[in-house]
Amino acid sequence: MTGIPDFAAVEAMDAADPLRSLRDRFILPEGVIYLDGNSLGAASHAAFDELRKAATEEWAHDLFRAWNTASWFDMPLELGDQLGRLTGAAPGQTVVCDTTSINIYKLLHAAMAMRPDRPVIVAEGDSFPTDLYMAEGVASTRKNTVLRLAGVDAPTIEELIDECVAVVLVNHVNYKSGELRDMTALTRIAHDAGALIVWDLCHTAGAMPVELDKANADFAVGCTYKYLNGGPGSPAFIYAAERHHADVQQPLSGWWSHARPFAFEQAYAAGTGIRRFLCGTQPVLSMRTLKGALDIWNDVDLAAVRKKSVTLANLFIELVEAKCGAYGLTLESTRDSARRGSQISFLHEHGYQIMRALIERGVIGDFRAPSTIRFGFTPLYVGYADVWHAVEVLEDILRSGAWKEARFAVKSAVT
Amino acid sequence: MTGIPDFAAVEAMDAADPLRSLRDRFILPEGVIYLDGNSLGAASHAAFDELRKAATEEWAHDLFRAWNTASWFDMPLELGDQLGRLTGAAPGQTVVCDTTSINIYKLLHAAMAMRPDRPVIVAEGDSFPTDLYMAEGVASTRKNTVLRLAGVDAPTIEELIDECVAVVLVNHVNYKSGELRDMTALTRIAHDAGALIVWDLCHTAGAMPVELDKANADFAVGCTYKYLNGGPGSPAFIYAAERHHADVQQPLSGWWSHARPFAFEQAYAAGTGIRRFLCGTQPVLSMRTLKGALDIWNDVDLAAVRKKSVTLANLFIELVEAKCGAYGLTLESTRDSARRGSQISFLHEHGYQIMRALIERGVIGDFRAPSTIRFGFTPLYVGYADVWHAVEVLEDILRSGAWKEARFAVKSAVT
Repeated sequence: MTGIPDFAAVEAMDAADPLRSLRDRFILPEGVIYLDGNSLGAASHAAFDELRKAATEEWAHDLFRAWNTASWFDMPLELGDQLGRLTGAAPGQTVVCDTTSINIYKLLHAAMAMRPDRPVIVAEGDSFPTDLYMAEGVASTRKNTVLRLAGVDAPTIEELIDECVAVVLVNHVNYKSGELRDMTALTRIAHDAGALIVWDLCHTAGAMPVELDKANADFAVGCTYKYLNGGPGSPAFIYAAERHHADVQQPLSGWWSHARPFAFEQAYAAGTGIRRFLCGTQPVLSMRTLKGALDIWNDVDLAAVRKKSVTLANLFIELVEAKCGAYGLTLESTRDSARRGSQISFLHEHGYQIMRALIERGVIGDFRAPSTIRFGFTPLYVGYADVWHAVEVLEDILRSGAWKEARFAVKSAVT
Repeated sequence: MTGIPDFAAVEAMDAADPLRSLRDRFILPEGVIYLDGNSLGAASHAAFDELRKAATEEWAHDLFRAWNTASWFDMPLELGDQLGRLTGAAPGQTVVCDTTSINIYKLLHAAMAMRPDRPVIVAEGDSFPTDLYMAEGVASTRKNTVLRLAGVDAPTIEELIDECVAVVLVNHVNYKSGELRDMTALTRIAHDAGALIVWDLCHTAGAMPVELDKANADFAVGCTYKYLNGGPGSPAFIYAAERHHADVQQPLSGWWSHARPFAFEQAYAAGTGIRRFLCGTQPVLSMRTLKGALDIWNDVDLAAVRKKSVTLANLFIELVEAKCGAYGLTLESTRDSARRGSQISFLHEHGYQIMRALIERGVIGDFRAPSTIRFGFTPLYVGYADVWHAVEVLEDILRSGAWKEARFAVKSAVT
C-alpha cells in the first residue's frame, strides 16, 4: 500500500471498467452523484421506452384488447423468469406481483401451513421492520404462533433455530448495516432443524450474484425498485422452489391464482406452479416499466457487478477514512467485503444534518435513525470518479461545518 | 312513442349533451367505438401528463428525493379523498392502494374481528369470483368461518342475513347482468341483523353517484381502472366509515400502515384512521396516472353522468331490439334503469363469435361465458352516435352471418 489513490488513478479505474458503457443507458440528472440506488434505482431509457409503449400503444390504442395482444396477463410470470436469471432461479419459480410486504405474508402463511405442528417464526430484530410487521400479521391469524427475534448481538438467528421453528425469515443483506448473510450455510441450518427459510433479497437482487437454487433455498421475496431499477414502487417478486409448489396454500387467493381464471367459477381452485402466489390485477404501467429495466440486465455479468461494487465500496471507505477521519465518522459496515452488500454505512452523531448537507450539494445518500448515513453503490451507473467527488464534498462539509446550516428535509420513505 | 329515433335525432342528442366536450380529454383510437370502459377505461391527456411528470421529472430527475418533493408517500390518502368525492365519502375515509382482491381480504378480516361471535360471511353466488375466492382465503385463516352464498334466484342475499352473520360482501352492480342493488336498503337490512356490510363498487365508482356516507355503509372496495379510467391495473381503493376506524385491525399490517413508519420500530403499532388499511410501497407510476384520470372528474357532475348513461343504454336497447330483434338476441339486463348499472348485457348462443366479429369491426365490448355479450356506456367519452353506429355494425354482422368467420380471440382478462 503506497497511500490512497489520487484522482488520476481513479480516472484510470473508470477507463478500465468493463461496465462503464452501461451508464449511458440510464437517465441521471446533471450535478448529482447518486449513491442511493439501494433505495430507489435510477430511470433508464429502456424503462421509459417500455412505459411509453404500454401507455400510448397498448392502453390508449389497443384498449381492452391489450390484455390479449400485449400479454399483460402473463407478465408476472414472464418477468419472474427474467428476474430469476439474476437470482439463480430456474424458470417457473419466480413471479412478479404486489408488494414485498404482501408477498412476505403469502410466503409465511404458506410455510406455516407446510409445518403445521411447529408454532415458531424466527426473524431478525434488526430486520427492515415491515418483515416483522407482516410476521405479526400472520401470527394474528394463526393461533399460538410465536415470533422469535434475534438480537443485534445475541441470541443469533442460528441460536434461535430449533425443532419448534416452522420458518426462518431473514434478510440477505441488512438494510442498515449492509451485512451479507451466507445463504447456503443458514439455509442448511434451517433445513437441518426441519424448518423452511424465506430470504428477503431486497438489498441483493441486482446487486450481486444470488444463487437461490444452488443454496437450496425454499422461498424468497424482494423488491424491484432498488438495484433492479424498476421505478418507484415497482411490483415485488416471490421465489418458491419447485419442490414446494404442490404443497403451497396461501390465503390471498385471488382470481389471478385460480386454475381457470377466465372460467369465472364460484369456488376457488388453486392454479399450478408459481402462479399460485398471484392474487389480483397487477399495475400494468409500473410492471411494464420494470420490464424495460430488467431488459438492461440481459447484457450484464453479475460477477462483474459484484466485483465493481466491492471495489467502489472499498475505495469509498479508504477515501473517507483518509480524508474525513478527523471528523467523528465511524464505519458501521464491516470491512470484510465478503460479508457486505453493496452499501456502506457510517455512523455520526450529526448524521442527519450531514446527509442534508450532502443532498443539498448533490451527493445523494440517505439517513437511517438514529445516526446512520448510508451510501449505495450501484455498479451499473456509479463510477469511481463519482466516489472521489462524493468524498470531496463530504470532506468539505465536515471541515467547514457547513452541515450545521443544511435545511433540506431528509425523510426516509423507502428502504 | 313514434318509432325509433333516426340518425338525425341521435345527432341532435349529441349536440345537446352537456358532457360532450369531455370526450376531447380522452385519447381514443381512430375507427373504434369503445363500449368496454366497464372493463378498462380509456386513456386521457391528463393521465398521461401526470405519468410523464412522475416518470421524467420526479423519478428520473429528483430520484429518491421525490419521496419528499412529490409527496409520493401521501398519495394513497390524497387520491382517496379525491375519489371519495365521487363515492359520497367525506374526507379521511378512503385510501387508494393495492388491488381489489387484497383490499377485500383486509376488509373481511377487519369486519370479522369486529363481530367475533359471528361465524358467517354472506356473499352472492354470482359475484365477480375474486370476491368469493378472497372470502375463502379469509375463511382459511379463521377457524369455523362459514361462507353463505346467495343463488341467482334463491335464496336471496336478504334471506341469508341473520344474527349469525358478521359481514355481507355484496356487489353494488353485478359484473355480468349489470343489476344495481339498493345500497341504503340492503345496508339497513344488514345493520338490523347486527351485521356489517362491504360494498364492492367496481362497477359503480365513476359510473353514477354513489352515496356511501348517506347510505350508512360500513366499508367499500373498488377498482379504479374501469369507469374512473386510471389505467390498466391502477391501484384499487378502500372506504371505511370513520366510526369504525378505531376498531379496525387487519392482518396485512405493513409498514405504510404503521403509526410511525419512519421510526423503523421493531413492533407493529397501527396508525390512525384510514391509513390503517395501507400495507407496503405503492406503484407510484400507476398511481400518478390515476391522479391525472381523477383530476378530470373535478369538472364533472355525476348526476349528469348517470342521466346520460341511462339514456345511452336505453337508446342501445331500443335500437338493438328494433334492428336486430330477428337474430336471437335476448336482453339479459333489466329494462328498469333504476336497477341497472352502466352496462347492457344481451344473451346469444353464439355470443362469443358475435363479440369476436364486433371487435374485428372496431366495436369493442366483451364476452362473459357462457353466452353474455356485454356493452359498457361510459358517458365521459361515448356519444349517442357511437351507439347508433355500434348497432349498425351489430345488425350487419347478424344479418350477413359474418360472425361465423370471425377470428379475433376474445379472452376475458378483466372484469
